[in-house]
Amino acid sequence: MNSSLSPKEIVKEIVSNKEVTSIVFVGCGASKADLYPAKYFLDQNAQKLRISHFTANEFNYATPSSIDEHTVVISASLGGTTPETVQANAVAKEKGATVISLTRSVDSPLTKDADYVIYHRFAENYAAKLEKTGYCLQLAVELLNQVEGYVHYDKMMDGFHKIYDLSQESAEGARLQAKQFAQRFKDEKVIYVMSSGATHEVAYSTSICLMMEMQWINSGTFHAGEFFHGPFEITDKDVPFILLMNDGRTRPIDARALTFLDRFDAKTEVVDALDWGLSAHIAKEVLDYFNPFVITAVFRVYAEELAEARQHPLTKRRYMWKLEY
Amino acid sequence: MNSSLSPKEIVKEIVSNKEVTSIVFVGCGASKADLYPAKYFLDQNAQKLRISHFTANEFNYATPSSIDEHTVVISASLGGTTPETVQANAVAKEKGATVISLTRSVDSPLTKDADYVIYHRFAENYAAKLEKTGYCLQLAVELLNQVEGYVHYDKMMDGFHKIYDLSQESAEGARLQAKQFAQRFKDEKVIYVMSSGATHEVAYSTSICLMMEMQWINSGTFHAGEFFHGPFEITDKDVPFILLMNDGRTRPIDARALTFLDRFDAKTEVVDALDWGLSAHIAKEVLDYFNPFVITAVFRVYAEELAEARQHPLTKRRYMWKLEY
Repeated sequence: MNSSLSPKEIVKEIVSNKEVTSIVFVGCGASKADLYPAKYFLDQNAQKLRISHFTANEFNYATPSSIDEHTVVISASLGGTTPETVQANAVAKEKGATVISLTRSVDSPLTKDADYVIYHRFAENYAAKLEKTGYCLQLAVELLNQVEGYVHYDKMMDGFHKIYDLSQESAEGARLQAKQFAQRFKDEKVIYVMSSGATHEVAYSTSICLMMEMQWINSGTFHAGEFFHGPFEITDKDVPFILLMNDGRTRPIDARALTFLDRFDAKTEVVDALDWGLSAHIAKEVLDYFNPFVITAVFRVYAEELAEARQHPLTKRRYMWKLEY
Repeated sequence: MNSSLSPKEIVKEIVSNKEVTSIVFVGCGASKADLYPAKYFLDQNAQKLRISHFTANEFNYATPSSIDEHTVVISASLGGTTPETVQANAVAKEKGATVISLTRSVDSPLTKDADYVIYHRFAENYAAKLEKTGYCLQLAVELLNQVEGYVHYDKMMDGFHKIYDLSQESAEGARLQAKQFAQRFKDEKVIYVMSSGATHEVAYSTSICLMMEMQWINSGTFHAGEFFHGPFEITDKDVPFILLMNDGRTRPIDARALTFLDRFDAKTEVVDALDWGLSAHIAKEVLDYFNPFVITAVFRVYAEELAEARQHPLTKRRYMWKLEY
């Protein structure tokens, strides 16, 4: 297991030793969602690489028959102990795949069957919480560039140089809006969350983790484009929605949902990457892929304030860390 | 546009004219979900084909750069008028892709840019409602078999011969359980739905269409493997869950969720493919891919009874069919 290399160096070493044909992203919950921007980037830009994305036990129990030595499995677990994801590394290894794992926990079980490990930070500040997503996206960019070539590589690298500071500053500037959100939403019984593009699974993790897991608030989530094909019938005056708006190509999808929500007086909170200056800092050709960073950072502050207003700490659990399941 | 060919003949004609490297599934809402078993089958079994699955406007606004003449786009829309999916066909066509569309509506807008159309039934009986999913899965099996070869092809064909009758009979036998379910769940304010494997997006469409769209009941949905990574913290005595249990490789994932729900006295309704004899009829090597059929047919009866018990017809809408949006 090698944990001393950068994403670029890891990919360089892999592609110098084998032909890479498939990239498989594997994780659980928020860590699964954190892999999504990289998966989305490759779905958008790869010409030949095969791309897939699984919750870990799906990968373990119904392992794709194509997993072999030409596969790179990228897995993530914040604490490095998620049993399903640890098992996925073993399954991938047994099939001959190259395994790259992201975790903040040095020498954790996740690192055991990984060929390469990238240690990321988390608790230090808002930007640190984005490193898992960021390193994974960097791996995706390197894989694409080194296997197929990628015309906007330099613009992506420039984005990586800027996105952490921009996200940290955005989060620090969001406190007042976050407090207002918390007061508006603290007594809600059900809160829906939606987005599109690279931010689709930020909406997902906001719903299943920040709302359901950390606040015990009922929640549902769907792609903003799917809103009009079922979920929108639940829309009515004062029904609560959080819309994570992208700046970039899928903005019209999010904007259409907002127009509908406003038309029927839903109780809508918008967190908009445009408000936080994303397009002033990131080249338009790669703008889409950096939305999840700013939006995740800003919404973390919203979640903190919601927890404070509800007197329900984000760390409070009924089951996790307390029992075997 | 050719609408006279079988899935096998369509694929034969395509692969005799070009190399096929990518299969892209595009739809909205229930029609997006109906494509999922085919997508799942190919994720599981393809060695070289590239596979992706999009809600239509995501495909339209952020079209993958790889779409070209070697791509087969498979799209679906029940009535053939879904604007985003009609537009997706035009986008795919403009990029040179071969377009196969599934609809029940002869000469509908969806057929305009399609190279091939498969007309399916819907309203005739419970089995007819499965034809969209079934033809799509047949296309996937033919694409795999004719492009790469597929060792269990005959077992899949045998499955297709049996699954419609089995699903129809299962639905017809489910009335009593469905009435009991309806009485138990008719006053619930929030109902969660989960599953795994090929049935993952049956849970999704059950949540966003049958619950939210057709009953205006709040709902959330997630993979049964993801339940333990966030959503399970919402579990408590009498919290309502619908678990769509697969017979096959991902059954342990569903069973683990059930054990947890039972342990904390959640209000759980299980629709289990095993109870309806799936494994008595379908070869074990291909069992996984037929779960969505039986479960969809049976749950349709549950939805009918829920609508009856709540005096809220499945066809009642606030917005759809009533206004422009």
